[in-house]
Amino acid sequence: MIKIMIRVLLYILLGLFMSVPAVAQDEDAFFIKKIYNSTLEKGKCYKMLHHLSEEIGGRLAGSQNATTAVEYTYDLMVEMGMDSVWKQECEVPVWIRGEKEEVIIQWKSTNKVLSSKNSQRLNALALGNTIGTGLNGVNGEIIEVYDLDTLDKMGNDLLKDKIVFFNRPMDPSQISTFSAYGGAVDQRVYGASKAAKYGARAVLVRSMTLAQDDNPHTGVCVYDETLPKIPALAISTNDANQLSELLKTQNVDVSIKSNSKNLPPATSYNVIGEIKGTTYPDEIILVGGHLDSWDVGGGAHDDGAGCVHSLEVIHILKMLNYKPKRTIRCVMFMNEENGLGGGKAYANESNLKGEFHLAAIESDAGGFTPRGFTCTAEDEVFKDHFLKFTSFGDLFSPYNMYLKQGGAGADINPLKSQKGLLIGFRPDSQRYFDYHHTAIDRIDAVNERELKMGAAAITSLVYLIDQHGLK
Amino acid sequence: MIKIMIRVLLYILLGLFMSVPAVAQDEDAFFIKKIYNSTLEKGKCYKMLHHLSEEIGGRLAGSQNATTAVEYTYDLMVEMGMDSVWKQECEVPVWIRGEKEEVIIQWKSTNKVLSSKNSQRLNALALGNTIGTGLNGVNGEIIEVYDLDTLDKMGNDLLKDKIVFFNRPMDPSQISTFSAYGGAVDQRVYGASKAAKYGARAVLVRSMTLAQDDNPHTGVCVYDETLPKIPALAISTNDANQLSELLKTQNVDVSIKSNSKNLPPATSYNVIGEIKGTTYPDEIILVGGHLDSWDVGGGAHDDGAGCVHSLEVIHILKMLNYKPKRTIRCVMFMNEENGLGGGKAYANESNLKGEFHLAAIESDAGGFTPRGFTCTAEDEVFKDHFLKFTSFGDLFSPYNMYLKQGGAGADINPLKSQKGLLIGFRPDSQRYFDYHHTAIDRIDAVNERELKMGAAAITSLVYLIDQHGLK
Repeated sequence: MIKIMIRVLLYILLGLFMSVPAVAQDEDAFFIKKIYNSTLEKGKCYKMLHHLSEEIGGRLAGSQNATTAVEYTYDLMVEMGMDSVWKQECEVPVWIRGEKEEVIIQWKSTNKVLSSKNSQRLNALALGNTIGTGLNGVNGEIIEVYDLDTLDKMGNDLLKDKIVFFNRPMDPSQISTFSAYGGAVDQRVYGASKAAKYGARAVLVRSMTLAQDDNPHTGVCVYDETLPKIPALAISTNDANQLSELLKTQNVDVSIKSNSKNLPPATSYNVIGEIKGTTYPDEIILVGGHLDSWDVGGGAHDDGAGCVHSLEVIHILKMLNYKPKRTIRCVMFMNEENGLGGGKAYANESNLKGEFHLAAIESDAGGFTPRGFTCTAEDEVFKDHFLKFTSFGDLFSPYNMYLKQGGAGADINPLKSQKGLLIGFRPDSQRYFDYHHTAIDRIDAVNERELKMGAAAITSLVYLIDQHGLK
Repeated sequence: MIKIMIRVLLYILLGLFMSVPAVAQDEDAFFIKKIYNSTLEKGKCYKMLHHLSEEIGGRLAGSQNATTAVEYTYDLMVEMGMDSVWKQECEVPVWIRGEKEEVIIQWKSTNKVLSSKNSQRLNALALGNTIGTGLNGVNGEIIEVYDLDTLDKMGNDLLKDKIVFFNRPMDPSQISTFSAYGGAVDQRVYGASKAAKYGARAVLVRSMTLAQDDNPHTGVCVYDETLPKIPALAISTNDANQLSELLKTQNVDVSIKSNSKNLPPATSYNVIGEIKGTTYPDEIILVGGHLDSWDVGGGAHDDGAGCVHSLEVIHILKMLNYKPKRTIRCVMFMNEENGLGGGKAYANESNLKGEFHLAAIESDAGGFTPRGFTCTAEDEVFKDHFLKFTSFGDLFSPYNMYLKQGGAGADINPLKSQKGLLIGFRPDSQRYFDYHHTAIDRIDAVNERELKMGAAAITSLVYLIDQHGLK
């Protein structure tokens, strides 16, 4: 009962002191409906995403496709008639996959699960930033493990010269698939160095997805520079399940060939455009996504969707002839996937210039139906910002969206020290990891209306922060 | 400000009188999480849906497939160990599509939109319950209209011997696609008789979807028995757009052949299973969907999803060894699509037996991510039921689901007079009409996790109503 009374008190306080006045709410609700109408009827985000995903394709930082995407989005911003459009240099690692990977398992006796063959090619993708195997490949016996800590117990005796197979699945009982991802991805990110510490020759990692299928999922691997580097590849969940089944009764060897390699760093660019604020030009509201993607597929959900969401914000505000009080800045960040070169360069330059980002909104969770926004900030400013932020809640309730505390986005996190509010767009997460970092993250995995609803939601939040600030 | 004060007052009242006590809430939250865990980890709904959609396929009432689906779900209920399982007779119309429809437009001069041809075959499907054209087909000049009332103004002069082409699109600015559907579907349901009144020979109707593609969408057409019956067919939205474009500059004739026909009514069945309540066996909580679907596609979202949601409720409660206080009844309704024979028969027999449905929950909006539940009831009992219903809101907030007033479902609506609460499950609606009543409403349009989340949500609501009643 006390919990209820406290909540009631909070509602009274919020009602009295924090809410947007009723008249403004009506005007805001009306303008937000206009935003939704315009986006659903005339939005261009799906067409832009089609171009990014299908005409340009996968666009890993440092690649020709990434350069093409920089030019494409720069030109779009210029066409939209933003007040300024520029490219911002950043340094990015250059990793190339090379020829198609080859992962072939072999075992001595036959097994029903894998029919009568005693060898099988697995669906595999080298992990980002990993070294290749060289022309002769890497061979060894597979040993299956479920978590990194187990390796410390196993030590050199069990791991030397082995191929470590990390096979802890994402937890299907998690409601948020991002939580399930967070609970499993350490194997992909740190597994290689951890295994190398005890003399393993290479690692295979179960793909980070809740789907049971044949699509391998790549993603970044981070080497401990003090340890030997060994090749690391993801295999599909179907293959991981079959391999695990096989290992219950057989010794299984594997032969791995991968041709990936790291080249010297290159210069790439964030693409930035802004509409200058009329009243508070020094208060920046940033909206962005990351322009780079993995090399396979089209990077449609990750993160073409976030890029075209952000571009659509500008397109819709321009279409509605909206003149912002504050500066609205649209940023296509480079190199989120394997280095964060763009996000770091952006924050560095912004800090050097003494800029203030009142709010930064990142869309990097796919182009699915919007469920809400989450936010974070430095402790000392969080409470004020959060109360104002949640006072917009009634305006999002017709769209069944929540406003909560939570994460923002990798590219904008470095801006936290400017003491504004960092906000993450949260679309429905159920399908995201079906496509994430795969060859099937293409335009046909994106529903046009779901994508547009996301753009409309983000535009609405930008509008509200522009109108009412965050204090 | 007054609105805010009223809301605060309402929260206080709700807090003091209506909420589930805090201890019960903790227990409930724990049990609901168990329901979600079990469903996401061990749910069978996707496998059952695969069978319904791909092994059995489209199952229009009166068809062999519908009979097979009756047997399949009856056997499933028996296997689950429900206390009683039975089939309930109902009369259903029998409509058959016959050989593939043929709709060919012809025009005198060439046109760039349709290249240099002067005839084109359209993607078409006869509407349900409509008559065929006979062997010679029906020919005539096409006239495009946007709403039914226009026909009254046009009259015999303009409409006699014409083929009326209804082309008002669903409104893309609607947030709920069901609202957009509701605003356009009169053309499909009543267009034929309205056109026949003024001497038209047949009608073509723009497919009821927001997607722009080549899939025609069938659905029911209702003839006015006092007027001549004329053939009615849906054409795809791409074809509708092209035809409309063509009509701006050309006279266009069309030749239609359709082989659909109505046979005498047949006997079919609802499939019903129940677990008897231990404390209040006379208070029934119904959960159901409709087993019939259109003949094309697999009826995966419409409404295989609702059927397997309902079956999963029983599967999960059984798996958790839950003994309900109230009687939980699972119903596969027959003939929702073109007659409601099953829903009417169910309510008639229930009324005759003097049964009381405390709650009836229908899932008939697809297998997408759950967004909430809506409810309705007779005016005199609505307020009490609704306050109790919404007192469960906190327990659904971790799943970001709303509980609101709104529609329930066609099959359960006839139970309203029993003065219980009628509840509709509301999954995300954005993709529903991409598949609705088409050949592509198949299992691959359904995401396994989204489907399971729906089953878990419905099971949770059944549990809460069983535990706490609705007063």
